Amino acid sequence: MVNRVLICNRGEIAVRIIRACRDLGLESVQVYSTADRDSLAVQLADHSVHIGPGPVARSYTNIPAILYAAAKSGADAVHPGCGFVSEDPVFAASCRGVGLTFVGPAAEHIALMGDKVAARAAMRAAGVPVLPGSDGTVDSLGDAVTVAGEIGFPLIVKAVAGGGGRGIAVVHQAEDLPLAYETTRSAARTLFADDRVYLERYLPAARHIEVQVLADGYGTVLHLGERDCSVQRRHQKLVEESPSPALDPELRERLCAAAVAGARDIGYVSAGTFEFLVAPDGAAYFMEMNTRLQVEHPITEVRTGIDIVAWMIRIAAGEKLELSQSDVRFDGHSIEARINAEDVARDWAGSTGRVHGLRMPAGPGVRVDSHLYDGYVVPPFYDSLLAKVVTHGATREEALDRLDRALAEYRSAGVTTNVDFHRRLLRHPGFRSGDYQLGVVESVLAEPLPGDDAHGEDHQTHTERTESHV
Amino acid sequence: MVNRVLICNRGEIAVRIIRACRDLGLESVQVYSTADRDSLAVQLADHSVHIGPGPVARSYTNIPAILYAAAKSGADAVHPGCGFVSEDPVFAASCRGVGLTFVGPAAEHIALMGDKVAARAAMRAAGVPVLPGSDGTVDSLGDAVTVAGEIGFPLIVKAVAGGGGRGIAVVHQAEDLPLAYETTRSAARTLFADDRVYLERYLPAARHIEVQVLADGYGTVLHLGERDCSVQRRHQKLVEESPSPALDPELRERLCAAAVAGARDIGYVSAGTFEFLVAPDGAAYFMEMNTRLQVEHPITEVRTGIDIVAWMIRIAAGEKLELSQSDVRFDGHSIEARINAEDVARDWAGSTGRVHGLRMPAGPGVRVDSHLYDGYVVPPFYDSLLAKVVTHGATREEALDRLDRALAEYRSAGVTTNVDFHRRLLRHPGFRSGDYQLGVVESVLAEPLPGDDAHGEDHQTHTERTESHV
Repeated sequence: MVNRVLICNRGEIAVRIIRACRDLGLESVQVYSTADRDSLAVQLADHSVHIGPGPVARSYTNIPAILYAAAKSGADAVHPGCGFVSEDPVFAASCRGVGLTFVGPAAEHIALMGDKVAARAAMRAAGVPVLPGSDGTVDSLGDAVTVAGEIGFPLIVKAVAGGGGRGIAVVHQAEDLPLAYETTRSAARTLFADDRVYLERYLPAARHIEVQVLADGYGTVLHLGERDCSVQRRHQKLVEESPSPALDPELRERLCAAAVAGARDIGYVSAGTFEFLVAPDGAAYFMEMNTRLQVEHPITEVRTGIDIVAWMIRIAAGEKLELSQSDVRFDGHSIEARINAEDVARDWAGSTGRVHGLRMPAGPGVRVDSHLYDGYVVPPFYDSLLAKVVTHGATREEALDRLDRALAEYRSAGVTTNVDFHRRLLRHPGFRSGDYQLGVVESVLAEPLPGDDAHGEDHQTHTERTESHV
Repeated sequence: MVNRVLICNRGEIAVRIIRACRDLGLESVQVYSTADRDSLAVQLADHSVHIGPGPVARSYTNIPAILYAAAKSGADAVHPGCGFVSEDPVFAASCRGVGLTFVGPAAEHIALMGDKVAARAAMRAAGVPVLPGSDGTVDSLGDAVTVAGEIGFPLIVKAVAGGGGRGIAVVHQAEDLPLAYETTRSAARTLFADDRVYLERYLPAARHIEVQVLADGYGTVLHLGERDCSVQRRHQKLVEESPSPALDPELRERLCAAAVAGARDIGYVSAGTFEFLVAPDGAAYFMEMNTRLQVEHPITEVRTGIDIVAWMIRIAAGEKLELSQSDVRFDGHSIEARINAEDVARDWAGSTGRVHGLRMPAGPGVRVDSHLYDGYVVPPFYDSLLAKVVTHGATREEALDRLDRALAEYRSAGVTTNVDFHRRLLRHPGFRSGDYQLGVVESVLAEPLPGDDAHGEDHQTHTERTESHV
């Protein structure tokens, strides 16, 4: 039984989890740093506990402070959200060690998928195709040169403890390998206190496709379809859509079946995401698995009507999934744009400030997950995500048109945002047609686009805005 | 072809129509009164035209000013929204007379359904059951007494030109008939400049069920299911849900088929709504047809994924419905609460003021249609609707739980609202169970409810809100 859920995260995802708790009739306890004292999550939660100052290491990844807050608030469950301690097996084990229900998978599954070499081996064993690469870690430059000779260039050097685009380097030719190898090891040592690396083939024109799975403790493993996350800048996702315009039904079925097989093979329980690279020829390779809620989960929720966050909590509380695969229906098309506080013109530098004149999009086919309110001050300590604007339509075209309409309505004066980038992306012929790959962001920034000569800044694209009087 | 749509309405419905125009790639022209100079609709539309001072008769129902605005702005179509000129056959005919595309049905259908006696006759001819009542108008008190003797008490005296709850009186016993008859005639003379009345049987415990239809100019007539609008105060709807918890599949099918037959029989084209009264024994009677967009249309949109406003425009532009009845799927359950600026404790008196500290609900399963923004001043001239909070869930329980969560998040300081009434309604055992009739509002206000002894005002219902520090 779960009655009171401690949320050890912040921002929009904390608000999302509070909403799931409320829908389930559960109490929410929001932990917060000094910088988040006035946050929307603190305002909406039933209870709140201060756990430390703004810097992450002293609050949102401070495990002793979080566990103390759980005890003090009488919480019986913990939801870690995305990021912070959500993929720390020590945290999951610590929670369960003191009798708290951890809303997520087993610590050993977090650890397994956190070790990218072990994850590759586990997926190979489950029959899931993985990218050609080193069999294990590559512990010397000499080994790296040998393995590179086998898999060829371009290739990618990856930290074993990395993930989410951190601790990786792409190598296009043999002469660049030594520098890339050493700098990745060095960066991994700093970032993860673990300098082991491995090599994988690099697919320059691939698409990033991920499959959402949901598994209970009674042997039911479902997939909720795929998400196309190929709109990335420096391995950070900016836009996601579902279904992927790149998959035919056969390939879609194959990826979804591989994800279900992978989860079933290791006995995974909770929500999780299998990430694949799909080459233009349709070859698909497992990349990594995220053992947590994904930022882009709403596009799956609006297409399937399944509340992923609520099911994570219910599964953690011991409930059985009430659904079978044939109950999962996929309705229309959905897309998400991440509105970040960043200045695209200044190399995407982060922006902070006090939000005013806030205008959130709304209306038919629009869902916004955000922690903003008028007067909110964006603090400097955390990631730049301000709002996820999600639209849904009967067709891809309708979903994209609605996203453009929603972005035109969006206003948050006081911070610089990437909204204009998103509206530009929607005018990019490759993106519009669905025929795009990783790298589309650079193309959007570099190429002249239809409408560039018009009034790009305001939401009027047709004609001069007029106002008159009868 | 339609390119530029003049919107002769205001408030949330104007914003809704602007969004549909944008999704369709059409330009929008917003007319506005002096009181609406700073409205969200004016901010969002591509163009805006001032048409007169605040009072309705001098702006939003001033047909010459509206037509002049259409000409001046180069609009080629007109969407009347709900209320104001939307059910004025003279307006529809005037638009078409000057070559404008009127987004709505033929003027003769507006006129037919505006004459409640003629509407009853037309529906009887189409085989749609109507309430027992006078065959036509009742032109003297003597006739009224005779007809009342035939249909029995309670009965209802209705103005021929009425509708939407205006110009009616319920009579429970014979001795009250003379006063009710004379005051209804007198009121109808003032309200509609037409003092003709008719009599109908009154069903005290009935439910108000309406069926949405959508018909194109090529013979396709679809129904989009029903809405249960039994939560009313003084014949004004406060909450609507779909599907109706009161209908079994057979009765649902019968009502939907009757609506389609009624629309087909008169050759109706556009969106329209057939309103029925359903007695506890399952007997169902046609009440009236609304020949316009309905305020509560979003609950149908979120269940079916069909954009009713966009289809109204496309049909008016001559497009064919791309759907057949079997393409219309009904997904889960939806409900709408109308948040009005009114003070329930002071007999629902209207409230005006400057909105601040605005917090709109959002997140999974929530759609809000509203024209509010932080700093907006609610003007005194118009209806009290501030926001329509619509929630959707896989089940009725999920939709209701999400509505309660959404209402708990809602804040608009500066004006008094009926939000607490809605949250109280959600705790009413009859409403919760789905077993309620017209009259449930009075019951919610009069009876003690579960949780009345708790902290009813804030959104915490579980326990005392706490804040602590580690």
